[in-house]
Amino acid sequence: MCRWLAYAGIPIAMDTLLFQPRNSLIRQSLSAQRSVAVTNGDGFGLGWYGDLPRPGLYRDTMPAWSDANLRSLAEQIRSPLFFAHVRASTGTATSRLNCHPFRYEDWLFMHNGQIGGWASVRQDVEGMIRRDLYRSREGSTDSEAFFHLALGNGLMADPVAACARTVAQILDLMAREGVSEPFRMTAACTDGRRLYALRWSSDGRSPSLYWTAGRVEGCRDGLVVLGEGRQSVMVLSEPLDEDASHWNEVAEGSFLVAEGGHVQVFPFDPPG
Amino acid sequence: MCRWLAYAGIPIAMDTLLFQPRNSLIRQSLSAQRSVAVTNGDGFGLGWYGDLPRPGLYRDTMPAWSDANLRSLAEQIRSPLFFAHVRASTGTATSRLNCHPFRYEDWLFMHNGQIGGWASVRQDVEGMIRRDLYRSREGSTDSEAFFHLALGNGLMADPVAACARTVAQILDLMAREGVSEPFRMTAACTDGRRLYALRWSSDGRSPSLYWTAGRVEGCRDGLVVLGEGRQSVMVLSEPLDEDASHWNEVAEGSFLVAEGGHVQVFPFDPPG
Amino acid sequence: MCRWLAYAGIPIAMDTLLFQPRNSLIRQSLSAQRSVAVTNGDGFGLGWYGDLPRPGLYRDTMPAWSDANLRSLAEQIRSPLFFAHVRASTGTATSRLNCHPFRYEDWLFMHNGQIGGWASVRQDVEGMIRRDLYRSREGSTDSEAFFHLALGNGLMADPVAACARTVAQILDLMAREGVSEPFRMTAACTDGRRLYALRWSSDGRSPSLYWTAGRVEGCRDGLVVLGEGRQSVMVLSEPLDEDASHWNEVAEGSFLVAEGGHVQVFPFDPPG
Amino acid sequence: MCRWLAYAGIPIAMDTLLFQPRNSLIRQSLSAQRSVAVTNGDGFGLGWYGDLPRPGLYRDTMPAWSDANLRSLAEQIRSPLFFAHVRASTGTATSRLNCHPFRYEDWLFMHNGQIGGWASVRQDVEGMIRRDLYRSREGSTDSEAFFHLALGNGLMADPVAACARTVAQILDLMAREGVSEPFRMTAACTDGRRLYALRWSSDGRSPSLYWTAGRVEGCRDGLVVLGEGRQSVMVLSEPLDEDASHWNEVAEGSFLVAEGGHVQVFPFDPPG
Repeated sequence: MCRWLAYAGIPIAMDTLLFQPRNSLIRQSLSAQRSVAVTNGDGFGLGWYGDLPRPGLYRDTMPAWSDANLRSLAEQIRSPLFFAHVRASTGTATSRLNCHPFRYEDWLFMHNGQIGGWASVRQDVEGMIRRDLYRSREGSTDSEAFFHLALGNGLMADPVAACARTVAQILDLMAREGVSEPFRMTAACTDGRRLYALRWSSDGRSPSLYWTAGRVEGCRDGLVVLGEGRQSVMVLSEPLDEDASHWNEVAEGSFLVAEGGHVQVFPFDPPG
Repeated sequence: MCRWLAYAGIPIAMDTLLFQPRNSLIRQSLSAQRSVAVTNGDGFGLGWYGDLPRPGLYRDTMPAWSDANLRSLAEQIRSPLFFAHVRASTGTATSRLNCHPFRYEDWLFMHNGQIGGWASVRQDVEGMIRRDLYRSREGSTDSEAFFHLALGNGLMADPVAACARTVAQILDLMAREGVSEPFRMTAACTDGRRLYALRWSSDGRSPSLYWTAGRVEGCRDGLVVLGEGRQSVMVLSEPLDEDASHWNEVAEGSFLVAEGGHVQVFPFDPPG
Repeated sequence: MCRWLAYAGIPIAMDTLLFQPRNSLIRQSLSAQRSVAVTNGDGFGLGWYGDLPRPGLYRDTMPAWSDANLRSLAEQIRSPLFFAHVRASTGTATSRLNCHPFRYEDWLFMHNGQIGGWASVRQDVEGMIRRDLYRSREGSTDSEAFFHLALGNGLMADPVAACARTVAQILDLMAREGVSEPFRMTAACTDGRRLYALRWSSDGRSPSLYWTAGRVEGCRDGLVVLGEGRQSVMVLSEPLDEDASHWNEVAEGSFLVAEGGHVQVFPFDPPG
Repeated sequence: MCRWLAYAGIPIAMDTLLFQPRNSLIRQSLSAQRSVAVTNGDGFGLGWYGDLPRPGLYRDTMPAWSDANLRSLAEQIRSPLFFAHVRASTGTATSRLNCHPFRYEDWLFMHNGQIGGWASVRQDVEGMIRRDLYRSREGSTDSEAFFHLALGNGLMADPVAACARTVAQILDLMAREGVSEPFRMTAACTDGRRLYALRWSSDGRSPSLYWTAGRVEGCRDGLVVLGEGRQSVMVLSEPLDEDASHWNEVAEGSFLVAEGGHVQVFPFDPPG
């Protein structure tokens, strides 16, 4: 399992959320509170939007907590939309190519969870990825494969339908292979403007997911300061501090869409 | 392109060939003499046999010339059969998972060259890999894919036939995709007893390949000392020193088999 | 804090102790049981003796638990004497040069603990290192500095006296700087034949240290199998399994010497 | 030896100079044209100023040409003042801590060259670093030591005088040790507003250094487009393209100061 955080709103220095809060994502890399895997030290990644349509990407294999470069980037770079991810491998190797987020053109994708029986269904899943998209497949994770399959299913045009179709396709392959392990995912993707997130699993036991909206004014004594207004949205694996009024849980089987500070959460029920 | 070296014979400390010769493999990583790519600094790998049937593997992404660990291992470990490889990427990422040699059970494989139009044929090549073998596919290189495809084609039972069939299959896929770039390879594989090597290309312009046999007695003033007897065999991308009497070129379109110091080289002519 | 293990005895494959036991050192890197720092993921190191007087050294910055190279080396290499260390930084950077063990000629040294007020006394400690020894100082840790200072104090000739003198010198510098933090260390060193270990602290709260002797016959169900005879000795930060009959605690303020399976533990009481 | 580049002027995306020119710094990492060391693959570093007084720092040990992170950062980050460096080690280890630029508070420093007999004079040079500054000494290079010694000699208040005094001190230590190897340096430092550079050697054979001024409008067909006006200044080891009209050589024994597009070059003649 892994932990991740997505932010969209007024431009902020990324360390405001990645390093400063009491239960910051970087702290979660060393000691997560609501995760099966306490330690998320098998690499990390950062994707952020700046002046270009294509986001920047910074991924490395060391634990997030010990990377001086990450701290420097997070302090320096102000961004209106960024994804950050700390990884606990579920089997595939620790490699930059297996670190989230994944990028395709102007899109970012990141994931926490697991396609059950991945070793059995991988070749078939990869075979279904659209030929031109396959060129950008670099690693061996189920997460990157899901992203590419979903892209071919129209992720850029209709994220909800594409995710539903992709989930259904994978469930079908799992069934054919007689896989009994569950398929679980909390995932996020974005085109640089809208933020999409999904919490779903075949056994109703998805990894945790939360969201909040407000004006991020900084961090004080390890607590995120959220002002009036809904200019900014965060979607994340676990709360950054213990202020219960801030963090809303995303229910099992939900799809979340955020744009301009407005958040919609509706049921996600893939066919199959 | 890359540079590699395979040794089979009396056990020797690996640095005898990797570090001590004037044109040692590590020197080739910084400045190769007979290679399209002068610098082979995109990672390296070492595979060696010890007390176990399964070989050891040490691969990393830094240049071979600057890795203190590699020097230490090469000094310490004596082995009767080892493969070493320094990589110059032809497009795929610098990652441990893309470093040679590749291992499957007791076998090692390494490669220098390129499957023309790899981006176009990759998905089809991968789709032809035997399902159970696909589980050990970790990276994205053409080299590792060739190895896995050849394993499914019976590499362990009949290496010549398996390589021929694999080359033919790939040529067929290249033709279907209308690829005009050549397919070139000098490759080596072993089960820990016999050493196999291949020099072949679709356009008659394979990377260079040499072999020698004799009793490796060490290295003096940067020259490999080869004594009487044919106890040991080396197959390698380029000579380790300028002593022309030592190094025999492997002709284009050849397959080499070495065992117990005996070397056979015969024509390799895949159907197709 | 860190965790380490030293082995001396009949040659064994290193993974017998590093990977196979229930509470193996590699498991301790992810989740130590008797350490202030639960996670020891800031690099690791391995030093071992083979055919040469000078030991081999393999150190890297990733967590020990995720390094495929380490697993391969540990499986392949049989050694009669090896040191292994997993690091939790106490402030200095994660870098190969700061990973233990440290090597000087035929000697190895590793350490768990901290020189109180290191930032204040470092320049003075380094200034006291013998000029010729200073050339091999590569990192910035207190541990490596202690080793070099001790070498100049005669570590190779009389380890007990050299350690006592070095501790006294450092305590003196700490006192001059008004350092109130404690000086704590459990350390080990060896010349490839004798194994020395030290557990001492200025405040009586040293990191834990254990030892055992016997014939290591392997690992069964995660339990180390120790046969009759005292051919082998282990000194280590924490027991490798819960078999209480195996593991003897080294008392505070002790120096341990092991050779040929014989272990002596006597009080260590530095002047000052 | 190494290669470096310093830019100060209108904010530009860093890849305009680091990746796009025909002889870009990244190309120099693989194949420098005016350097003793053709390959500068022993790590790299980037320091840049953004919204904060303290610059960001990104350094890693892989070759600059193969780091996807570096490419992403260089594309994304626009900066009015940045330093970039590709390293060819002159003996000290490949480690992030030995990669340039070095940072102290709001200052950056980078260097190409060598203090002759560094192994002999290092301990004395380090002993002369001001005690409070020594806390930020992390690696073992002569370059970082020069920076810290110069900081203690008043680099922040009077860079010319501080550099002259530091050079003189080091020459004095070299003389005391009977070092016959030369002391050579081309170095740059900045406080985020003014850019300082130095080309000097004890034997009149400093590494190459160039400068140019103008309005950087981008890169076309690998040529840097410099418009009218002197808003921007570059100081760098070698020209980025073959347009001879752009690049002015900095003479041996010179000190350069640039601010607001104005460049002054005057003789540098340290006492001693």
